[in-house]
Amino acid sequence: MTLLQPHPDRLFPSEPGQRDIARRLYAEVAHAAIYSPHGHVDARLLLDDEPFGDPAELLVTPDHYVLRLLHAAGVPLDDLGLSRDGAARTSSGRAVWRRLAEHWDLFLGTPVRFWFESELHDVFGLTEHPSAANADAQYDQLVDALARDAFRPRALFERFGIEVLATTDDPADDLSAHLALRADPRFRGRVLPTFRADRYMDPSAATWADSLDRLAGAADVDTTSYAGLLAALRVRRAAFAAAGATATDTGVLDAGSTPLAAPDAERIHADALRGMVTSEDAVAYRRNMLFRLAEMSAQDGLVMQLHPGVIRNHHAPTLSAFGPDTGHDLPDTGAFTRPLTPILDAFGTDPTFRLVLFTVDETTFSREIAPLAGFYPSVYAGAPWWFLDSPAAIWRYRQAVTDSAGFTKTSGFIDDTRAYCSIPARHDMSRRVDAAYLASLVATHQITEDDALAVARRLVDEIPRTTFRLG
Amino acid sequence: MTLLQPHPDRLFPSEPGQRDIARRLYAEVAHAAIYSPHGHVDARLLLDDEPFGDPAELLVTPDHYVLRLLHAAGVPLDDLGLSRDGAARTSSGRAVWRRLAEHWDLFLGTPVRFWFESELHDVFGLTEHPSAANADAQYDQLVDALARDAFRPRALFERFGIEVLATTDDPADDLSAHLALRADPRFRGRVLPTFRADRYMDPSAATWADSLDRLAGAADVDTTSYAGLLAALRVRRAAFAAAGATATDTGVLDAGSTPLAAPDAERIHADALRGMVTSEDAVAYRRNMLFRLAEMSAQDGLVMQLHPGVIRNHHAPTLSAFGPDTGHDLPDTGAFTRPLTPILDAFGTDPTFRLVLFTVDETTFSREIAPLAGFYPSVYAGAPWWFLDSPAAIWRYRQAVTDSAGFTKTSGFIDDTRAYCSIPARHDMSRRVDAAYLASLVATHQITEDDALAVARRLVDEIPRTTFRLG
Amino acid sequence: MTLLQPHPDRLFPSEPGQRDIARRLYAEVAHAAIYSPHGHVDARLLLDDEPFGDPAELLVTPDHYVLRLLHAAGVPLDDLGLSRDGAARTSSGRAVWRRLAEHWDLFLGTPVRFWFESELHDVFGLTEHPSAANADAQYDQLVDALARDAFRPRALFERFGIEVLATTDDPADDLSAHLALRADPRFRGRVLPTFRADRYMDPSAATWADSLDRLAGAADVDTTSYAGLLAALRVRRAAFAAAGATATDTGVLDAGSTPLAAPDAERIHADALRGMVTSEDAVAYRRNMLFRLAEMSAQDGLVMQLHPGVIRNHHAPTLSAFGPDTGHDLPDTGAFTRPLTPILDAFGTDPTFRLVLFTVDETTFSREIAPLAGFYPSVYAGAPWWFLDSPAAIWRYRQAVTDSAGFTKTSGFIDDTRAYCSIPARHDMSRRVDAAYLASLVATHQITEDDALAVARRLVDEIPRTTFRLG
Repeated sequence: MTLLQPHPDRLFPSEPGQRDIARRLYAEVAHAAIYSPHGHVDARLLLDDEPFGDPAELLVTPDHYVLRLLHAAGVPLDDLGLSRDGAARTSSGRAVWRRLAEHWDLFLGTPVRFWFESELHDVFGLTEHPSAANADAQYDQLVDALARDAFRPRALFERFGIEVLATTDDPADDLSAHLALRADPRFRGRVLPTFRADRYMDPSAATWADSLDRLAGAADVDTTSYAGLLAALRVRRAAFAAAGATATDTGVLDAGSTPLAAPDAERIHADALRGMVTSEDAVAYRRNMLFRLAEMSAQDGLVMQLHPGVIRNHHAPTLSAFGPDTGHDLPDTGAFTRPLTPILDAFGTDPTFRLVLFTVDETTFSREIAPLAGFYPSVYAGAPWWFLDSPAAIWRYRQAVTDSAGFTKTSGFIDDTRAYCSIPARHDMSRRVDAAYLASLVATHQITEDDALAVARRLVDEIPRTTFRLG
Repeated sequence: MTLLQPHPDRLFPSEPGQRDIARRLYAEVAHAAIYSPHGHVDARLLLDDEPFGDPAELLVTPDHYVLRLLHAAGVPLDDLGLSRDGAARTSSGRAVWRRLAEHWDLFLGTPVRFWFESELHDVFGLTEHPSAANADAQYDQLVDALARDAFRPRALFERFGIEVLATTDDPADDLSAHLALRADPRFRGRVLPTFRADRYMDPSAATWADSLDRLAGAADVDTTSYAGLLAALRVRRAAFAAAGATATDTGVLDAGSTPLAAPDAERIHADALRGMVTSEDAVAYRRNMLFRLAEMSAQDGLVMQLHPGVIRNHHAPTLSAFGPDTGHDLPDTGAFTRPLTPILDAFGTDPTFRLVLFTVDETTFSREIAPLAGFYPSVYAGAPWWFLDSPAAIWRYRQAVTDSAGFTKTSGFIDDTRAYCSIPARHDMSRRVDAAYLASLVATHQITEDDALAVARRLVDEIPRTTFRLG
Repeated sequence: MTLLQPHPDRLFPSEPGQRDIARRLYAEVAHAAIYSPHGHVDARLLLDDEPFGDPAELLVTPDHYVLRLLHAAGVPLDDLGLSRDGAARTSSGRAVWRRLAEHWDLFLGTPVRFWFESELHDVFGLTEHPSAANADAQYDQLVDALARDAFRPRALFERFGIEVLATTDDPADDLSAHLALRADPRFRGRVLPTFRADRYMDPSAATWADSLDRLAGAADVDTTSYAGLLAALRVRRAAFAAAGATATDTGVLDAGSTPLAAPDAERIHADALRGMVTSEDAVAYRRNMLFRLAEMSAQDGLVMQLHPGVIRNHHAPTLSAFGPDTGHDLPDTGAFTRPLTPILDAFGTDPTFRLVLFTVDETTFSREIAPLAGFYPSVYAGAPWWFLDSPAAIWRYRQAVTDSAGFTKTSGFIDDTRAYCSIPARHDMSRRVDAAYLASLVATHQITEDDALAVARRLVDEIPRTTFRLG
């Protein structure tokens, strides 16, 4: 049995002088409210406020960070709660938890381990590291906890100290969960939708035409023309804004943003509806759509989040058997400065426009993102994301970005998570690393401790509120 | 009021053992003479030796490092002393200084802050951090200082301990300022011109034909043919060398260097003069010109500095309103190993040829620049430059370059600055970081302190003198 | 005279708390047996067990790490024991050693210096740093040592504590040295061949047809057809496996792996034998061959090592005068995720298939290699290699790879060396840096010291044995 005791100094520098500074900085922000302006929790979770069911379904199966490392160690996805080819799942929650517990050492040194340790200890009160020996007992303990009222979504929302939680939503979503939640007098949290129009950008995608139909229904606007699609998106953006949205999110293969003349876009739109779009035209249409989304942001002020450069579903057999988001989305080479030229020429100095850039290719931190954020008032350097959301990578981000963009043009932390119970752990990790980074600047006399305290506070409050226009 | 007191240990490691070593190493080089072999100060400044006028015109407006961060925070360039569309500037020096003072916190953690703190404190004697409250008083204090003889360019040259200062000059420049300065018995400093022929490389540039005309006048050689252009450049290189130049500088979009046969180059030259050059031909001509400049360096021994990979004037509206060098030159993906193959095949082991490579894409440090400098006797790894001229990036440069190229194949520090009064601060930053880096090697027993002392001394003296053939 | 005394704490952190942890971790693995699953020592060396001759021929001339830095400092390769254009070498061993000794400072801060210090001190008992003053005396001392029985290859094999040593061999090699060594009752070490089929992949290479002939002889299979080539390779893989091989190795310009239909490959094969292959066809054929090698690995279970992205023989005049492996192989931009898609779609989750990825472009650590190893059970993140085999780069590797792949999906250290006597120094360096890295995780409370001890032990034993299927 190994005691699970997250250390109060974890992630702080070990040199005593620096550690003391980091402790003081962290103490100022450790309990600050959580702004989570970018994530994948479902608003309905908070609306319904039902008890979470199975611990494995909460903690393992939906979290691709966890799945991928277990899979890499040879555990089949079937054994982790995923169902193959739409058939019934073949593994019980208890069996899935056991798989995790057996492979606990696998996560040593990874951020997943940090999150899990904080979450299991701080949220669920586990006192031992998971292992084959205690797997059943811990599973039972988690089941018991999740049955208690204190572990319902709203109770946790309050306990976690979440001030703002943004979800990610399709433009065709009627936002009924969000609207009901806003109307519910028993819930005082701010849960905001985020407008993510990825499905409407690539006219060669198999689902494009169906998505247009759904959008037409949601917006009550005919989307069989390109002009109609733009109009429908505008209608839905307004509806999102009315429901509290302050931002959009866009994931595309690349950041190309060359606009098309309207007649050219109309022709491609029509071709695509007839199933006759060429791949060149599809790419041109997608890049034009990115430009149009920026244009809309410059009009309505919804903050544009952009994260290009992820190759989705790299392993075709896994996609075919288990569907998307199963651990094999992989980073591509990133690029921003050249492909974003049309958007930045048009809106880069427009005070209404705001663009937050995320990457999974860390070479772009010092080469592209920080230099762009260090000139364009509209551009913000998004927090380290996905494969780069780890103590070591957050440190590299700060070192690479601060030189050219300082602190105020960084976005503040985003957790980007589907794992609701990991939200506090993720923000805590970021706060600890930022405290450590600032302590290193203080200890080397680059900034004073007073300045560092002010920056630490701004990083968890003013900076995310400003960046994402949260008020 | 916050006291401005640059700490004597700034940028040194905080671990006491390492810090002591860093202090000892730094003490050996803190007051060493400054070799500044690459910069943008105007020789006429030292020839005329007039008092600097307005502090903002000296410290803010011409420095794109400062402009870009203020602009990124939403300050219009109009408010920073730049004039729009050639009209009169709309902001007084006092107002510009106030803008800087109000946004002082913006620079926290950036190298600009380090330079400013040293410069304002050590050169100008300011004792408080700039702020809205003290902006007027500090502005007045700076005005007073600049009116004193001790703040004239020559007095500062001596006070700064500058041994060699290289400027950057067009081949058509008659070098009259340099020649007069050399002839002036009252000035004993070494101020050297640097031959920068960028204007003559791209025959599709709008200014190319006019530049050829001016060059023809300066060289007294007809440049309407390609052969004539090469001859004129050779004439001017000889004139530069006679005026003390030891180096050339070249900034191009990429490092492609495939030579053309003379008839092909002549044809493109003629086409371009008729305004009929294709973009493919223009690129081929430019890359051939890079090869020819290397060939000339292999003949006359002027050290070739090369810094490809900067996208100039990314924001067209700002270029159009305010002109170039206004903060939106941005890094491109870098490449050296493949594009430089023709030059290195031809001259890579020629003892007369010397090539110093600079980059704004730090991925090339370990992948391209250090491996090239670690084989070719002609190639030197240029100091971290522009976006990478910061404590954190200098550290990454040393860590990435030393493995494959050691210390002796690095160039020594270059400040590349237009901000005359920041020269000592910039060299001081570099010396501190190098001392800290060497201390880390000593403290981990990779080298001895005696070896580190020897390296520290060579880095500020023998290495720049050797690299740039300063004698 | 400077004493050569490698410090017992070298490469450990200087912060006393971290250093103590690193010492304890290192103590556990300092004397562990050496697994060297990837290198370039000749099996015949151990079969013949003759005394090494000249020290320079052992320590300088064959080691491109050493050659390249001396050459970069202006020492001609003629002076380092290489012969020009096949003529007799013009420098004596004594003169070559003197060149090294004179330039000893050149290696300060490089891994070559670390290896040399350990090797000269620990293996050869030198007690002074090489210098011009002691060059002759040290050369004599080395000659004396090498004449002693204790310095014969087998005695050193035992003294070095080598458990497994893998060589690199052409498929046409008859493996007679390996077979004789296995049959020799006086030698108990495990020396394993590695199947490296690079010569058969590019049908446009000048040596391709001759290589096919030799392979046909070795395999007793007609290789004039593509099907025959595949059959011959399979025959030789079986022979390698029978001689103890557990792995293959492949170095290609890029990792492209698109398979061809058999008739297309046959046509290109036939075209190439007639000397009529196009460059496009040659590339397609090479990429198909990479796929076929993966396919064979998925069948016979030989671990596939892949290291794309090296530009061989960058300086044509040096290649022409001195041949390959003379210090001017240079890193190219790396890529894995996209080019390996065909192989990973086909075999990525096949339990028989195993793929170890090496790179000289460190940007791929966090962007490609770790994410691939963190999903695909077949993929392992190869140790930092060649230009990245240094303390600083090993540290960056661990920081970049651990987040997404943990420790268990890394390969364990490989020395990749031709320099037999540097093997212990190279493994020692890796063990020290891993101990220091693990100590940093312990000191920042990311893992416990018990966990770190377990990882340190696995990194030098279980992990290389598992990765390379050494049993």
